[in-house]
Amino acid sequence: MPTLDPITDGEVAPWLTDVRQRFYTRPTRIPLAEVARWEAHPGVATIRHESGRFFDIHGLAVAVDGVLTWRQPVVYQNDIGVLGLLMAERDGELQVLVQAKPEPGNINGVQISTTVQATHSNYTRVHGGRPVPYLDYFANPAPHQIVVDTRQSEHGAVFFRKRNRNIVVQVAEPPAAQDGFCWLPLSTVYRLLAVDDLLSMDLRTVLGCLPWVPEPAPTTSSPFQHALHRSMQPDAPARYRLPDLLHWITDTRCRHRVDTTRLSLPELPEWRHVDGVLSAGKDSPFHIIGVSVEAAGREVQSWSQPMIEVPDPGVLALLVADIEGVLHLLVQLRIEPGLIDVAELAPSVQQLPGTPEPSAAEAELLIRALSASPQDIRFDTMLSEEGGRFFHTRNRHLIVETAPFDEPTGYRWITVAQLRELLRHSYYANVQTRSLLSCLTSLLAEPAPGGRC
Amino acid sequence: MPTLDPITDGEVAPWLTDVRQRFYTRPTRIPLAEVARWEAHPGVATIRHESGRFFDIHGLAVAVDGVLTWRQPVVYQNDIGVLGLLMAERDGELQVLVQAKPEPGNINGVQISTTVQATHSNYTRVHGGRPVPYLDYFANPAPHQIVVDTRQSEHGAVFFRKRNRNIVVQVAEPPAAQDGFCWLPLSTVYRLLAVDDLLSMDLRTVLGCLPWVPEPAPTTSSPFQHALHRSMQPDAPARYRLPDLLHWITDTRCRHRVDTTRLSLPELPEWRHVDGVLSAGKDSPFHIIGVSVEAAGREVQSWSQPMIEVPDPGVLALLVADIEGVLHLLVQLRIEPGLIDVAELAPSVQQLPGTPEPSAAEAELLIRALSASPQDIRFDTMLSEEGGRFFHTRNRHLIVETAPFDEPTGYRWITVAQLRELLRHSYYANVQTRSLLSCLTSLLAEPAPGGRC
Repeated sequence: MPTLDPITDGEVAPWLTDVRQRFYTRPTRIPLAEVARWEAHPGVATIRHESGRFFDIHGLAVAVDGVLTWRQPVVYQNDIGVLGLLMAERDGELQVLVQAKPEPGNINGVQISTTVQATHSNYTRVHGGRPVPYLDYFANPAPHQIVVDTRQSEHGAVFFRKRNRNIVVQVAEPPAAQDGFCWLPLSTVYRLLAVDDLLSMDLRTVLGCLPWVPEPAPTTSSPFQHALHRSMQPDAPARYRLPDLLHWITDTRCRHRVDTTRLSLPELPEWRHVDGVLSAGKDSPFHIIGVSVEAAGREVQSWSQPMIEVPDPGVLALLVADIEGVLHLLVQLRIEPGLIDVAELAPSVQQLPGTPEPSAAEAELLIRALSASPQDIRFDTMLSEEGGRFFHTRNRHLIVETAPFDEPTGYRWITVAQLRELLRHSYYANVQTRSLLSCLTSLLAEPAPGGRC
Repeated sequence: MPTLDPITDGEVAPWLTDVRQRFYTRPTRIPLAEVARWEAHPGVATIRHESGRFFDIHGLAVAVDGVLTWRQPVVYQNDIGVLGLLMAERDGELQVLVQAKPEPGNINGVQISTTVQATHSNYTRVHGGRPVPYLDYFANPAPHQIVVDTRQSEHGAVFFRKRNRNIVVQVAEPPAAQDGFCWLPLSTVYRLLAVDDLLSMDLRTVLGCLPWVPEPAPTTSSPFQHALHRSMQPDAPARYRLPDLLHWITDTRCRHRVDTTRLSLPELPEWRHVDGVLSAGKDSPFHIIGVSVEAAGREVQSWSQPMIEVPDPGVLALLVADIEGVLHLLVQLRIEPGLIDVAELAPSVQQLPGTPEPSAAEAELLIRALSASPQDIRFDTMLSEEGGRFFHTRNRHLIVETAPFDEPTGYRWITVAQLRELLRHSYYANVQTRSLLSCLTSLLAEPAPGGRC
């Protein structure tokens, strides 16, 4: 996979190098019982901060259609975080204000993220505290142009009903970039998606909610990736009418029932504290570890916290096909324990270590994705999950072009335009889908029409 | 208000007269403690059927933004009911298959309703039992054209997180109407909305979810109502862009937090059993009464059940205005205790007896609606709430044309097209708004463009 070196757009590489020297987090693994100010020792019912703030980790039993399906710890955070991206037209093209943000779980310290990541408490200022730079553009966006503002789910396999607000605001008078921030052309941002572990999950999900493809088309000078066939139009006519897709989603959500029961951590069979880590052993979907952090930069401090570690990368693959001249993506409707509304659209393959065996259909699609010829692989980059909660957790993002084939049960071929239409609204597409949609957008050779407003 | 007599479309009046003689429910009020097979006596924590089926009534404490706001009984029904309407093109126009349905709470016994009202259990046939006529068109709609399929909320002031599936299926080969059913032109159905207590709430909410206005325009020969000004187009350009409206909804849903706690009925202050009725006295938002029912017709039987009684009609008013040549509706975002997602769009005025004092803004709008000149009142009909749960509960439905004015806080002028766009998705507009939208559609002189599929 490409490194940052070939990228010559502006001063991205030297800017990052400079920022990384001054802004960093240095995590050290520590036993859970030694995580200061957290109740995280063996036998505790709920892992929680002594103040009750930040997040809790407790157990959850999940029954799908009356059948017990999962018993696992979940991260519970009763807060709608704000992921805000500031946008402006500068020098004749759309630019966004990104932040080089250090997070303790980032494998490489600093990644490029949204303008703002704030908790709801930051947002409403209930706790007072140091102001978050640029937050006011998102707390009071009315004077500006709101491009998108929607709540979306986070990882339903780890978080219980966690949501983030994805908001993009375009300003006529762009503010100067503070230290650690940088205005980048949107086309550059899309190109940077091809670099391993560079664009944060927060930035990818917000890009995935953008209602249109930016101009100029980001691939025109991409040194890494193959553009998708230019003959494929990202817009209509689609294989399915939107009412048929909405029926599919409604029907699935009505036919299946997800019941959850809160458990204490010791009630979870197989989950045990071993060597300071809470884990279900070798098949554990994740481990809960303790981390001590030394940070420098904007918020100089040190702290300890529990984190989620998924040691082996998973595979997130989107199969795309030309169906009668129109680009279609193969998506599934997937039930996850922490989702707020039964099931959301997920990529063709969402194979994470330790999660339940893939269905026969998904296993076949995984083989199809991994055995694709190199010329059919349009995108193949290792990208990180959110580094404030996930420790060194990465997933391979694959986009593979294929000839169209009959959809397996539970799958549909949909168009980019249809997915974007659904992403105007909450809880239709999961975080993995949004991340892959941002990757796919980076490959679109033809800009889609502007958003319908 | 007009009676049914002036309606000469087809054989609606004689059909209803005939059906009413053979299909009926005869309710008798009885004390709650005498409702057979229900635990409903004074002191019971939860009113419930001995089988655990149908519905429960328990107490609920609701805190909005940390402030205790409501303590009241709520009806809890863990079931997504199906409201299905079958549609076909017959004799060159769209027709729908309606049912003359008796419900014990209907003030006039039989009202015209959707093709199917079924519980989820009917739908999935888990309990076996007698098949519901035409249900298979909605359980397996794939061979037909799905017009709309969406889950929508029920009365958030009474039900706790109750949802119904609103589904319209168009068939190429319409089945014959069984006894008690009738194919009616859609334009006739819209005209019948002007008759007091004739079209059921279930039918009104489904009509409110239709993504377009039917042709021919229903008002062209309406004997009762004034059409809205023909110069007003029901479609764009709107005062607000859709992203701005979605921002308004997202922001409201993020800024407010609704926490609910289940209570036993005796824990509710002021709610007492008096003369066999559970009520909070003269300011009670509703009473819970017992009803013994004798029914004849399709399902000949007798039973007893608790019902919700709202003795005085409320006022539901939609103010509409011509803003730069475009028809706009004034809607508010309203928090109700039983809504699944904080707040939904509500009419300009939703004033129900016993509910909290209206805001100053809503009180002013109520005065504006009630004091409108007769020539500005476009629609004024008393329509019933769902007669399976509500006993003789009716609300005045008013549509009043006004000059545009500045929106009060918490209100927005939106277009018909924007409301329809939102109604493709779940939980944006409450049942009162959907009911009034169906009334408004009956007045639209110019058909809107067909649905975007």
